[in-house]
Amino acid sequence: MTDDALQRLLDEIAARMADETERGTPAQYIPELAKADVGRFGIAVAPVSGGVTAAGDADLPFSIQSVSKVFTLILALERVGGGVWQRVGREPSGNAFNSIVQLEHERGIPRNPFINAGAIVIADLLAEGRGVEETVDEILAFLRHVSGDAAIDIDPAVAASERRTGHRNVSLASFMAAEGNLKGRVKDVLAVYYRHCAIAVSCRQLAAAGRFLAAAGAAGCEQVVPAERARRLAALMLTCGHYDASGEFAYRVGIPAKSGVGGGILGVVPGIAAVAAWCPGLDARGSSLLASRAFEILAARTGWSVFATRAG
Amino acid sequence: MTDDALQRLLDEIAARMADETERGTPAQYIPELAKADVGRFGIAVAPVSGGVTAAGDADLPFSIQSVSKVFTLILALERVGGGVWQRVGREPSGNAFNSIVQLEHERGIPRNPFINAGAIVIADLLAEGRGVEETVDEILAFLRHVSGDAAIDIDPAVAASERRTGHRNVSLASFMAAEGNLKGRVKDVLAVYYRHCAIAVSCRQLAAAGRFLAAAGAAGCEQVVPAERARRLAALMLTCGHYDASGEFAYRVGIPAKSGVGGGILGVVPGIAAVAAWCPGLDARGSSLLASRAFEILAARTGWSVFATRAG
Amino acid sequence: MTDDALQRLLDEIAARMADETERGTPAQYIPELAKADVGRFGIAVAPVSGGVTAAGDADLPFSIQSVSKVFTLILALERVGGGVWQRVGREPSGNAFNSIVQLEHERGIPRNPFINAGAIVIADLLAEGRGVEETVDEILAFLRHVSGDAAIDIDPAVAASERRTGHRNVSLASFMAAEGNLKGRVKDVLAVYYRHCAIAVSCRQLAAAGRFLAAAGAAGCEQVVPAERARRLAALMLTCGHYDASGEFAYRVGIPAKSGVGGGILGVVPGIAAVAAWCPGLDARGSSLLASRAFEILAARTGWSVFATRAG
Amino acid sequence: MTDDALQRLLDEIAARMADETERGTPAQYIPELAKADVGRFGIAVAPVSGGVTAAGDADLPFSIQSVSKVFTLILALERVGGGVWQRVGREPSGNAFNSIVQLEHERGIPRNPFINAGAIVIADLLAEGRGVEETVDEILAFLRHVSGDAAIDIDPAVAASERRTGHRNVSLASFMAAEGNLKGRVKDVLAVYYRHCAIAVSCRQLAAAGRFLAAAGAAGCEQVVPAERARRLAALMLTCGHYDASGEFAYRVGIPAKSGVGGGILGVVPGIAAVAAWCPGLDARGSSLLASRAFEILAARTGWSVFATRAG
Repeated sequence: MTDDALQRLLDEIAARMADETERGTPAQYIPELAKADVGRFGIAVAPVSGGVTAAGDADLPFSIQSVSKVFTLILALERVGGGVWQRVGREPSGNAFNSIVQLEHERGIPRNPFINAGAIVIADLLAEGRGVEETVDEILAFLRHVSGDAAIDIDPAVAASERRTGHRNVSLASFMAAEGNLKGRVKDVLAVYYRHCAIAVSCRQLAAAGRFLAAAGAAGCEQVVPAERARRLAALMLTCGHYDASGEFAYRVGIPAKSGVGGGILGVVPGIAAVAAWCPGLDARGSSLLASRAFEILAARTGWSVFATRAG
Repeated sequence: MTDDALQRLLDEIAARMADETERGTPAQYIPELAKADVGRFGIAVAPVSGGVTAAGDADLPFSIQSVSKVFTLILALERVGGGVWQRVGREPSGNAFNSIVQLEHERGIPRNPFINAGAIVIADLLAEGRGVEETVDEILAFLRHVSGDAAIDIDPAVAASERRTGHRNVSLASFMAAEGNLKGRVKDVLAVYYRHCAIAVSCRQLAAAGRFLAAAGAAGCEQVVPAERARRLAALMLTCGHYDASGEFAYRVGIPAKSGVGGGILGVVPGIAAVAAWCPGLDARGSSLLASRAFEILAARTGWSVFATRAG
Repeated sequence: MTDDALQRLLDEIAARMADETERGTPAQYIPELAKADVGRFGIAVAPVSGGVTAAGDADLPFSIQSVSKVFTLILALERVGGGVWQRVGREPSGNAFNSIVQLEHERGIPRNPFINAGAIVIADLLAEGRGVEETVDEILAFLRHVSGDAAIDIDPAVAASERRTGHRNVSLASFMAAEGNLKGRVKDVLAVYYRHCAIAVSCRQLAAAGRFLAAAGAAGCEQVVPAERARRLAALMLTCGHYDASGEFAYRVGIPAKSGVGGGILGVVPGIAAVAAWCPGLDARGSSLLASRAFEILAARTGWSVFATRAG
Repeated sequence: MTDDALQRLLDEIAARMADETERGTPAQYIPELAKADVGRFGIAVAPVSGGVTAAGDADLPFSIQSVSKVFTLILALERVGGGVWQRVGREPSGNAFNSIVQLEHERGIPRNPFINAGAIVIADLLAEGRGVEETVDEILAFLRHVSGDAAIDIDPAVAASERRTGHRNVSLASFMAAEGNLKGRVKDVLAVYYRHCAIAVSCRQLAAAGRFLAAAGAAGCEQVVPAERARRLAALMLTCGHYDASGEFAYRVGIPAKSGVGGGILGVVPGIAAVAAWCPGLDARGSSLLASRAFEILAARTGWSVFATRAG
């Protein structure tokens, strides 16, 4: 697909999304996110060959939320390798993102690193032997590095809002601490977690940041992660990227992707491009209604589903 | 990959599997399956371009078991279209293949068509308005047609063995009947289910039968299913094909596949080939230990993971 | 309390119940029970000293349903003694009467003999080594004997109705068979179960039948069960007699009792009397709304709660 | 029973318990409790008529733990009356004392006030509008008052030990806060909870403290709670007093009682006496092995089961 054709497609998608009247509802449980304007929609594509094509509000910052879990997982794998999998599983959870039932049945081992409990364990792994600040700085530095944009930062109002309303996450973290699957102090681990969830990014920045995952782990001549790891991360995104609606997204779209309650979705099309779409209105299961729809149209028009028979 | 290279690779895999000493255990709960010889191993690849390359015991028949659920789902989609999804979900279950807990929590709607409860609903859909014999005949005819092998048939000893030990399936079916999600008589629906699970196939036959799924739904010039449906079936196989170990298979192998307790696994590499591997020894979660390993080696050596960056 | 005072109290209760406008709804899932007239109400008290005092529709027959489980448990204890407790527990279930979740978590051992699964195990114990007819005859003979009324019989229309709509019970029984906790054929065991649930009794008959439980196990000079067993049965009725509303009945009433979806409740006041009340309208948890209320008034007026400080 | 006969019976029980070699294990998850000497055993009976008869180590202090929940519930009922039941249920839980599964299924409403989650809600009710100190002082003052022993106090080492290892309770409290069923700060509510659980009492003090519950709510001429409330508290103790082994205790013993992981059990025999027994070795479900056995012998020898046919 030429850059021009891609631009026209994204413009068309942005125009269709602008016309949608049913737009979902912003996340209510984090007051700062509840203020978001559901009228906004952005989309950006970062091909492995370089550059970013974008449409709509692709330069407006939004809260990265759970999409950050892809990047913290990468850092944790970098740090402790396969040891990560002693403390968190790799299976779809079959439950809501913040369910505690599974934790009790499986003795404090979260099903996967993309549900809240799993991402808290990952934050604990990252913070081990370091302070909160240093850990958060490393996460930020990594995102700035892979996106090539040093301006990416945390939204302190969102971080504070999450902390104030984070009882459910305290419950999850404390439960894992009781089961011996949390090494740091609950308070410190959650400080890391809340802050990496509160990073503000635009679609353009997010697509650029995810590009190396589509490029067999490489950003230009730098191999950010081994190719095999990039492939496996894509598998995890496909099976676990949308909480208990992951099967649905795989079925309809077929692009490995991770959604966040800020309304953003980052998709990875192996060998082709990273894609970021955003609209803050969520569906019943906590993913962006219009960003999901945009991915569905994009996949249908480009054949970018990993299950499509690409000429190859 | 040339046919010769593929033949060498399959021979190598078969040789390695022959050397493995830890081979798993045949399914114990169906006496007829418990007799299977774990020393056997077969593998076959059916490229979209035609032909079948095979190695090991690729011509020995084994019990298709849950792999048949791919084909009955296709027939049900053919018959009632999207109506299928009113009665069964599309999400990974997060539970064992025969769990009843989820059914109670979700009022008799199985999570997906590949767990037992889901496949029983599919059998019910297929049997509606017809007798058991006619329904089973249609399933057999379809498998014979897509495999191009009229010799495929049911192993009556296995079917009888399943029926005699099928209390758990009676429990699942009766539960759904109580919730209004089974139209036919429990006895009849299970007669269809037991019999399609008792179909005997070889790796060669199974790979040939699955080829159209890798070929955008086409078998030669016949469009067996629309390309979009083939894509979506592959998505379902990837997210739900191995019960509560689907995430693990996606992570390690990355090929959409469906396993059965007979020890067979059918994989679909979109645009390239269908793959069947078999060894009756199972791992703790009910998939063939060596057939899984064979898929892992095959994917690593060919780059056939859907998450790999194929040159394209 | 004199017989006259008791008669006046029962008359008053019957009059108050006649005036109630909110009367609950008959069990809907058994068509034959759904026809019951919620305008009816009966109450009967059988003091340990003999005789029966009654009011309202105390001579109308109704379906005994789960109240029969007290009597089948007694017969099973008579037959196999403490061995009963290898196959069924003695704890409140915390779940609805027909839940299957607990069965899966606890490998086919029902929580107690008063939930459906538990009573099915008891029916299996009773039927072991005998035919369905012989087993049902023994249950009927026992009820006729302890009530002193040879006219008690099964309502065949109710038994047939239960069988036709018994998918949930087939599910429970088959699940236990799969776990090895059912020896007989599912069909036969349920035939026993459906028929003992379909016994028709009046309040007068039921109170008379329960009298020995209030009399330390003795009916006149016959020791029907040892005194210790009568005491323990009362404990089970108090902790498990009303499914997931047992705590509530103990809290409000304090009389060991067993309810059934036919609208009857049998209570045991140790040392004093057996009580039966009936109205077919059920509350949300499957116990008779007005029979429960009648017990509450009776306990408040007589001090018959086992938790009351009787002069003694 | 004469005082002399009672003294002989308690002496005999204490002697038998001293001879027992299988004595259970002290609670391990609270380090301070793990140090307890399982060689100790005490028992005391406080008849409604006054005085206390005791045997064994009846004057040694032990940690009251969950037995304190009876007294905090009484204070909460005093404070807000029936409003308590908007925030906590009255049903046996069917789960372990610290399970969180039920909380998720029932939206943050604990099953009863005697499991940890329920007692934390009660602590929250007591602390509302007051500081931690004032609330704890009130609880202590109440226990001192009803026991007539001003020396009862908190063991600060135990309170500190509970706080340090209380992740599971933080998890429960935070979960309820997330569901809106906790008004105070998690930290403050748990400070109250940990401290009332860390009160040290002897069997003699505990039996004296519970006497009013056996005396229709009256301590001498003071009506501490209405008679109906005393009756209902006894019902709750019987159905919910031993976590998921409440049915078993009711079945074997038949005395309303509350156990704690400190190894103490307080029983209430309506109209007759309060009983306290203690040995720090626990059984698999968290109740004292020998204190339970002592209650069983006592009930068998005295006929104090509420299900016994007392002459009256």
